[in-house]
Amino acid sequence: MEKKKKIVVIGGTACGPKAAARARRCDQQAQITIIEQEENLSVATCGLPYYVSGVIDSRQQLIQRDCDFFRDVLNIDVLTLTRAVAIDRKAHRVEVLNLGTNRASTIEYDRLVLATGSLPAVPDLRGKDLNGIFTLSKIGEAQAIRDSVSPRKIKKAVIIGAGLIGLEMAEAFASQGLEVSVVEALDWVLPALLDFESAAYVEKHLRQNGVKLFLGQSLTGFEGDKDGRVSRVITEKTELEADLALLAIGVKPNAGLAEDAGLEIGATGGVAVNAHLQTSDPDIYAGGDCVENVHMVTGQKILAPLGSTANKHGRVIGTNITGGDETFPGVLGTSIAKVFDYNVGRVGLSQWQAEKAGYEVTSSLVPGYEHATYYPKGKEIMVKLVAEKATKRLLGGQVVGPGETAKRVDVLATALTFSATADDLANTDLAYAPPYNSALDPLHNAANVIRNKRSGYARALTPMEVEHKLKSGDDFIFLDVRSPGEWEAFRIEAPQSRLLPLRELRRKLDKLPRDAEIVIFCHSSVRAYQAQRILDGAGFKNIKFMDGSIAAWPYEISTERKAPPPF
Amino acid sequence: MEKKKKIVVIGGTACGPKAAARARRCDQQAQITIIEQEENLSVATCGLPYYVSGVIDSRQQLIQRDCDFFRDVLNIDVLTLTRAVAIDRKAHRVEVLNLGTNRASTIEYDRLVLATGSLPAVPDLRGKDLNGIFTLSKIGEAQAIRDSVSPRKIKKAVIIGAGLIGLEMAEAFASQGLEVSVVEALDWVLPALLDFESAAYVEKHLRQNGVKLFLGQSLTGFEGDKDGRVSRVITEKTELEADLALLAIGVKPNAGLAEDAGLEIGATGGVAVNAHLQTSDPDIYAGGDCVENVHMVTGQKILAPLGSTANKHGRVIGTNITGGDETFPGVLGTSIAKVFDYNVGRVGLSQWQAEKAGYEVTSSLVPGYEHATYYPKGKEIMVKLVAEKATKRLLGGQVVGPGETAKRVDVLATALTFSATADDLANTDLAYAPPYNSALDPLHNAANVIRNKRSGYARALTPMEVEHKLKSGDDFIFLDVRSPGEWEAFRIEAPQSRLLPLRELRRKLDKLPRDAEIVIFCHSSVRAYQAQRILDGAGFKNIKFMDGSIAAWPYEISTERKAPPPF
Repeated sequence: MEKKKKIVVIGGTACGPKAAARARRCDQQAQITIIEQEENLSVATCGLPYYVSGVIDSRQQLIQRDCDFFRDVLNIDVLTLTRAVAIDRKAHRVEVLNLGTNRASTIEYDRLVLATGSLPAVPDLRGKDLNGIFTLSKIGEAQAIRDSVSPRKIKKAVIIGAGLIGLEMAEAFASQGLEVSVVEALDWVLPALLDFESAAYVEKHLRQNGVKLFLGQSLTGFEGDKDGRVSRVITEKTELEADLALLAIGVKPNAGLAEDAGLEIGATGGVAVNAHLQTSDPDIYAGGDCVENVHMVTGQKILAPLGSTANKHGRVIGTNITGGDETFPGVLGTSIAKVFDYNVGRVGLSQWQAEKAGYEVTSSLVPGYEHATYYPKGKEIMVKLVAEKATKRLLGGQVVGPGETAKRVDVLATALTFSATADDLANTDLAYAPPYNSALDPLHNAANVIRNKRSGYARALTPMEVEHKLKSGDDFIFLDVRSPGEWEAFRIEAPQSRLLPLRELRRKLDKLPRDAEIVIFCHSSVRAYQAQRILDGAGFKNIKFMDGSIAAWPYEISTERKAPPPF
Repeated sequence: MEKKKKIVVIGGTACGPKAAARARRCDQQAQITIIEQEENLSVATCGLPYYVSGVIDSRQQLIQRDCDFFRDVLNIDVLTLTRAVAIDRKAHRVEVLNLGTNRASTIEYDRLVLATGSLPAVPDLRGKDLNGIFTLSKIGEAQAIRDSVSPRKIKKAVIIGAGLIGLEMAEAFASQGLEVSVVEALDWVLPALLDFESAAYVEKHLRQNGVKLFLGQSLTGFEGDKDGRVSRVITEKTELEADLALLAIGVKPNAGLAEDAGLEIGATGGVAVNAHLQTSDPDIYAGGDCVENVHMVTGQKILAPLGSTANKHGRVIGTNITGGDETFPGVLGTSIAKVFDYNVGRVGLSQWQAEKAGYEVTSSLVPGYEHATYYPKGKEIMVKLVAEKATKRLLGGQVVGPGETAKRVDVLATALTFSATADDLANTDLAYAPPYNSALDPLHNAANVIRNKRSGYARALTPMEVEHKLKSGDDFIFLDVRSPGEWEAFRIEAPQSRLLPLRELRRKLDKLPRDAEIVIFCHSSVRAYQAQRILDGAGFKNIKFMDGSIAAWPYEISTERKAPPPF
């Protein structure tokens, strides 16, 4: 009789249980053990912000599979409250410590799986150990935060870090009646995910929901009260009163065990694995937050600490450790978050990431509606696409707004998987009916803007470039081609601003100076582009439009009603 | 000075105006004319069912661009209420008839665009000209139907054809308080789009909403009352009282003008065009409902009469007739419809279409939730994937249910564009957060089921195969592995049915006869597949599960509470 394969899995959140369950389905004879230092397996840590907010009622809902399921159904040995303390690669043994009894023991393996996850980054700053300062990566931490917040006695929460968890928690705290401030070292929210203009669009919504943003300032420390409880969060530029502080500045791979065992660690700090998710030791596989991934756009190694990736890793590992042969192709940095009533998603590279990676890019910024404008209750979304200039190959996209964005992000993720170009995207046969989108989806329009720019038909400045020109007092005409009614309702006030509705443009061409620089805008840029083409055709030589127009304008908008001036 | 190019566009709904507008943006000098026999251009005909239902209030909302916009902004000559009656290809002239004055004239062209659309199919049957029998392709028809229905005097509507328009109109009529019956010649609804089991899932919902379905019976004619108004719809099998009848059996390309001009017509009846959307006459382009398209999966010619395709065609044509060079890659038959509270989408080939086209297929049928199960208010969806057996290349997919399906259809559409396999789909980095999906999307699960079937781990029967076995009195164990509580609430009653909860399976293996054929099911098949693997591992030899389990079971379900029997 064949010897039963001994499989040991360290880590019980997402990748570990998935790898173990898949291994069992592939090999009914193997002896499989999961080691987990917490009390439960398969905790849905992505749901923790919603447990704090109360959207998810009970802790129990977050435990996706109880330990008995693993034992009774999957015939897996489950060692919870047990820590793996060392790996003896030569002897193929893991030393473990039972955290309840404090007793040490060893477990033999033929194949070992490291799914040790990540740890919240905690900067070594003054006051970091005060009470009332939290991180959020475990159910116990979520419980502690919920216990602090739910009596509704504390008033002010300060979140350090405007990443995914930071913004999800801003909503959670606000829903619990707290005053919420968010401190971010970089100049815009979700800096690892979005470009400035998409972030600015989200920032407006955060501010509308009462969240105070303190951007472009690093945390320098905390101050406490006489009871040792946090009372102030100190940044480079300000001091914020705080009854509670949440450190959400990111996570780092929990790779200490792997490192101690002499396994190769990548430059990202994650455990290095090949496409089979095998470490530098062929008998040891690793997946989930603790490993580094290949970015499918750049080919470079990145960290991708997400439950979605961890689960896919788990299946690949479960297959491979039981004699199968499966590879993991990599990730695209796809992310989405609910930020109050906005759906904020992105994939691939942002423009700044693409430029940093050495790409010359063409981008488009296209406001649109989630479905046909004539079908009721449509909500706005904004699409930013980033493409490689020479080839029009899509490098990334951001889709944000109150309307449906997850669909568009997932379409882009699929397109990027196959190195799609803007030409491909523009003709993709997406599902159309008025309740779901327009005949041309905003993604089609965004792809066509890239194509129009590359063919030389469309020329645009970004809102940031326009703002810089306005602020610098440049001599140009900032031409609003919306209707007088729209102008009355809201507008961009600037000395360079003029109103000339698109419908009158052909008739009033002679009122525009032919040698002037003209930057045209409207609501969404559809009319502005049209106007640009009219002026091009009339022989004007220095005409551009503003990408995304007023819908994407992240700066001040005047809403005081007044009658439009004559042109 | 270069001679201005004369562009004439016949047809003003979607492809025509788009081609004209794009041509203008590419060429500011061209002389462009649109000929349209109706009163308006750019009518959103896809919105007509929602105008009948009242979801869209006013006709005006359906006119996306008024004629003045085309004249003033785009500098296009608009000839509405004008019919193109003949094309003189040699002289490069179109003969037109002004329907108001009845005056004929000719218009010269350098490039001609045919965007003549489609016509509703009307079978030549007894009584077809009675009052109260409608088709729906123009705003005037929608108005006539609305005028018939909105006084709320008539009671019974019979729709002939359970296609997209038929089912959208079933909802529209029901929302206006009518009793609705739908007659369909084939055995299930949306037969051109769905397989039987996806359709059956939708049929349940239609019946819950009071719609009576008369499937598998062709229309044979109509009877009228003494005022010449329809009173009965007659089928092969029944007679239905009707105060109103809607013929929704499909559309055919309006290709008469092209045919009369000697242009090549394809076997589908659509105008034949190359990838540049150029007809057999190089100076004549055609697009929209009147042309045939290439199906990107099969490479065969098909008709794809949809506004989304027509708009894409328009851009390609507008580019090409002004000196550009753009191609249209083809379509995937992507479709979606809101059917009451269900979102019904599909792409590529259904299983029966794939098999008819000669493919040997592997399919999966996977019930799931639109987002993380622990995040509140998740709604169910059902995914069917069809893949080529040998290569796992995806051939098509159907996603139906009350939950979000458009996203999944669009991901599949993008994947099919690039000939993706189930392996590709299983690892696609889709956006994950609890409000949007589970760590593994139902699409990932559906792709993995295909992979499990191909690797030999998973073996399944379809619900139809199981039903046939049950009905035939086959000797097998139909093993329900859900919990006793689930069994009490609802179950499939059959002599072959047994309950043995998954959690007890390993302990009670010896209660199952080793030589028996066992077909396992649960709610969604997750537990059933697990059970199959346990029995496989225990040496059982004839074990399968039922694809989609109870969630996909289209037949009778017993909901009378009773205690589960002992095993």
